[in-house]
Amino acid sequence: MRRIDLNADLGEGYGPWRMGDDAAMLAIVTSANIACGGHAGDPEIMYETLSLARERGVVVGAHPSYPDRMGFGRRRLPCTTGEIERFVAAQVAALMGIAALAETHIAYVKPHGALANVATVERDVAAAILRAVRAVDPKLAILAISGTMLEQLAREQNIAVYSEIFADRGYTAEGNLVPRGQPGALIDDADEAAGRLVRFLETGLMPTVDGGEKRLEAHSICIHGDSFHAVAMARRVRTALMAAGVEIAPFIG
Amino acid sequence: MRRIDLNADLGEGYGPWRMGDDAAMLAIVTSANIACGGHAGDPEIMYETLSLARERGVVVGAHPSYPDRMGFGRRRLPCTTGEIERFVAAQVAALMGIAALAETHIAYVKPHGALANVATVERDVAAAILRAVRAVDPKLAILAISGTMLEQLAREQNIAVYSEIFADRGYTAEGNLVPRGQPGALIDDADEAAGRLVRFLETGLMPTVDGGEKRLEAHSICIHGDSFHAVAMARRVRTALMAAGVEIAPFIG
Amino acid sequence: MRRIDLNADLGEGYGPWRMGDDAAMLAIVTSANIACGGHAGDPEIMYETLSLARERGVVVGAHPSYPDRMGFGRRRLPCTTGEIERFVAAQVAALMGIAALAETHIAYVKPHGALANVATVERDVAAAILRAVRAVDPKLAILAISGTMLEQLAREQNIAVYSEIFADRGYTAEGNLVPRGQPGALIDDADEAAGRLVRFLETGLMPTVDGGEKRLEAHSICIHGDSFHAVAMARRVRTALMAAGVEIAPFIG
Amino acid sequence: MRRIDLNADLGEGYGPWRMGDDAAMLAIVTSANIACGGHAGDPEIMYETLSLARERGVVVGAHPSYPDRMGFGRRRLPCTTGEIERFVAAQVAALMGIAALAETHIAYVKPHGALANVATVERDVAAAILRAVRAVDPKLAILAISGTMLEQLAREQNIAVYSEIFADRGYTAEGNLVPRGQPGALIDDADEAAGRLVRFLETGLMPTVDGGEKRLEAHSICIHGDSFHAVAMARRVRTALMAAGVEIAPFIG
Repeated sequence: MRRIDLNADLGEGYGPWRMGDDAAMLAIVTSANIACGGHAGDPEIMYETLSLARERGVVVGAHPSYPDRMGFGRRRLPCTTGEIERFVAAQVAALMGIAALAETHIAYVKPHGALANVATVERDVAAAILRAVRAVDPKLAILAISGTMLEQLAREQNIAVYSEIFADRGYTAEGNLVPRGQPGALIDDADEAAGRLVRFLETGLMPTVDGGEKRLEAHSICIHGDSFHAVAMARRVRTALMAAGVEIAPFIG
Repeated sequence: MRRIDLNADLGEGYGPWRMGDDAAMLAIVTSANIACGGHAGDPEIMYETLSLARERGVVVGAHPSYPDRMGFGRRRLPCTTGEIERFVAAQVAALMGIAALAETHIAYVKPHGALANVATVERDVAAAILRAVRAVDPKLAILAISGTMLEQLAREQNIAVYSEIFADRGYTAEGNLVPRGQPGALIDDADEAAGRLVRFLETGLMPTVDGGEKRLEAHSICIHGDSFHAVAMARRVRTALMAAGVEIAPFIG
Repeated sequence: MRRIDLNADLGEGYGPWRMGDDAAMLAIVTSANIACGGHAGDPEIMYETLSLARERGVVVGAHPSYPDRMGFGRRRLPCTTGEIERFVAAQVAALMGIAALAETHIAYVKPHGALANVATVERDVAAAILRAVRAVDPKLAILAISGTMLEQLAREQNIAVYSEIFADRGYTAEGNLVPRGQPGALIDDADEAAGRLVRFLETGLMPTVDGGEKRLEAHSICIHGDSFHAVAMARRVRTALMAAGVEIAPFIG
Repeated sequence: MRRIDLNADLGEGYGPWRMGDDAAMLAIVTSANIACGGHAGDPEIMYETLSLARERGVVVGAHPSYPDRMGFGRRRLPCTTGEIERFVAAQVAALMGIAALAETHIAYVKPHGALANVATVERDVAAAILRAVRAVDPKLAILAISGTMLEQLAREQNIAVYSEIFADRGYTAEGNLVPRGQPGALIDDADEAAGRLVRFLETGLMPTVDGGEKRLEAHSICIHGDSFHAVAMARRVRTALMAAGVEIAPFIG
């Protein structure tokens, strides 16, 4: 527990547009979840981000999503599980094709946004994602939110699965994320976020919004980089963890 | 020369739209060039077409294109060779991902439309396509128009390359296609087309628009299926070739 | 009641793709609902369809939709009423711009697919559509499904509103469409459809699936043209109505 | 000549992505060229930008483009003049529809990027743009680059046309922009740019890259806001002009 990965969502641009400061984040994280054309990302941006990650020695994963650029993958689209299986396979495989050109390789898959949220609770959607990943490349690991259906099902199917917690989100007594909009959902203060994480890495116990603690499993901490403030907070979290003697290293090779 | 493949462009729909009668064509051809999201094709249609081809025992290839649905890949877009490399890799790989779900595999790559035309004469574009294909999967073969730069460069690079001629197009004395709009460009009559192909398969000589003949190499004949008339002509060509004792078989496994 | 309009959805292609036989349908209908970029339609197809309609003397309306080409506007997307207001305004106005080039004008608006279904029952969505239409051009009429919230709200707001019934759909005792998939939902037989419509135009009473009748209001009959069978049925309905002495004429100028 | 408009390209985002700091620029310019779905812009962003411009009292124009988000409208696409006419009409009209919702109105049209460049020299493309604008709304003015074919043709056709010069670009002896990549193409220093503009407004003479001067006509100065540096330069130019007693006011109402 004294060793942890830091992951962030990168390559989330499209055509001429960029989201966040990817170069800055690649100096902070050890794993990068790279958009693969669902909510963001095109062949140019995938190549650019994968190349930069390789130069920085950052491990890369695919970050598939509902095909919904207008909604940035944050809306649940009315798709069947068969459709989910197909678009996940196409997105992950496309990123793998670009990774081959960029002389790197995709190590894991982490679903994005609404797709990740649905796979948190719905077994058939989690199963569709896992079928797609296994078909495309059985060596791919899964990075899942700690305590979710996706994590549980991957474990049942003997798929290599790693768990993530969030640096800037509050937790309920049950170990779920406090929904956005409710008190305690977001942790804005970098020092508070860092302090919570250091204690969690020492004890395995996450403070909960009701004042208690919940035992969680985590191989990675998800940090955000989509604003100037977010990048600063990410940097602060990394510094605090290192100062506390935590080793920052990828969860997978 | 008494054995030949028949190939056609399939899966060229998008969302609710379809182009041509794919089911009919899959009973005629031995190889199917499947759109992979450039000029046409989405994960649903790719899956549907790949599944149907597998049931019919038809070999499948990827059919990448300039990313241009509005122009159906028939317009040369202003792209750098680097951009071409990236979009070809992403498209071919996406189709491979869907093929894995459909329990089949992609055997070859044939560029579509304007991309194929440019790769006929421009060495750097042909090289970009070959770099992308080799990076994504070095076992993929190339299906090239007979006598083109793409065919020649693939041969130089020791990539497995197969040549195609067209059932419904006239040839110049140099062995190139008569440009559309010029006399002799199109062969509308199915019997004439079939007769030319049978003689070509017996002699290796293709009749040319000036009344002469040109020696061409061919492992496959490209036939079209995008109209009722085209499907009928394709069927007629197949029947005539078989009646003449030609074996219709895939050029690759 | 001895005079009725026939309307159909036209211009539902995209880029190189077409849906149905628009030329055939323009010889049958008196009003054409033209896709305006939501579920289908691009500037070229809008222009082509508007020009053809003008030549044939067919009245034209805008056919806005959830922005969802992949789902052909048949899926309810997670949009706010504000977003609905904006995309309806943009789509209707874009078609008006093309109509000006084609030297014709848009007379009415009929929502498409899932948007029409939602506006059948949800007052705030119906209100959003009406706000958009009024803002873009207060002279535009509404073509609404008979008996719906959209029809009722337009009437309350003193917007010119016309009602449509369906040639090929069964009705419940309450005057609603029998949901697809339930017995009596679809009327496949052209003669039966025509017979029902003739009787309805004589009496104002629509046969219902429980063997009874329901009084409905109708200024237009919606017919489909998206298959060979559908076009034949549309033609049969028109012929039967005319044989019964019904005048086929647009509901608006 | 002691009164001038300042214009900038705004609303150039798409879905979740934004380009530049529109709010800052709306405090600097008197006219805003608003993307209308060609190179950028969707109904939400159009509405947001139009609403903000109305609040700030900034005049708004439509900023149509080749339909090319991936290339941000900076690539010349292979389009016919008919196609140009249609997409310009659809884009301008769509923005007008959203403007009606936002309770403002579009006063002029300024072509974007590659479309503007082509219309600088090609008479048939300039004519296509003007046909589209006249058809959609004959009251719309044109904002053209000073000295171009578009400006000349609009004048010949008695369309209200206004001329713009660029704050940050060098001019040739003939009064054209020094092509990007050549010495003197870009003016990086805000004080130098402001100084040149003040002198130009006093004399009507623009310094040229060969050390001479060229008489140019201008109703507006185009300034950029797509970077932190650009916004600072825009602000500096405005301040310098006002300090020199130049009135900053829209060229049209």
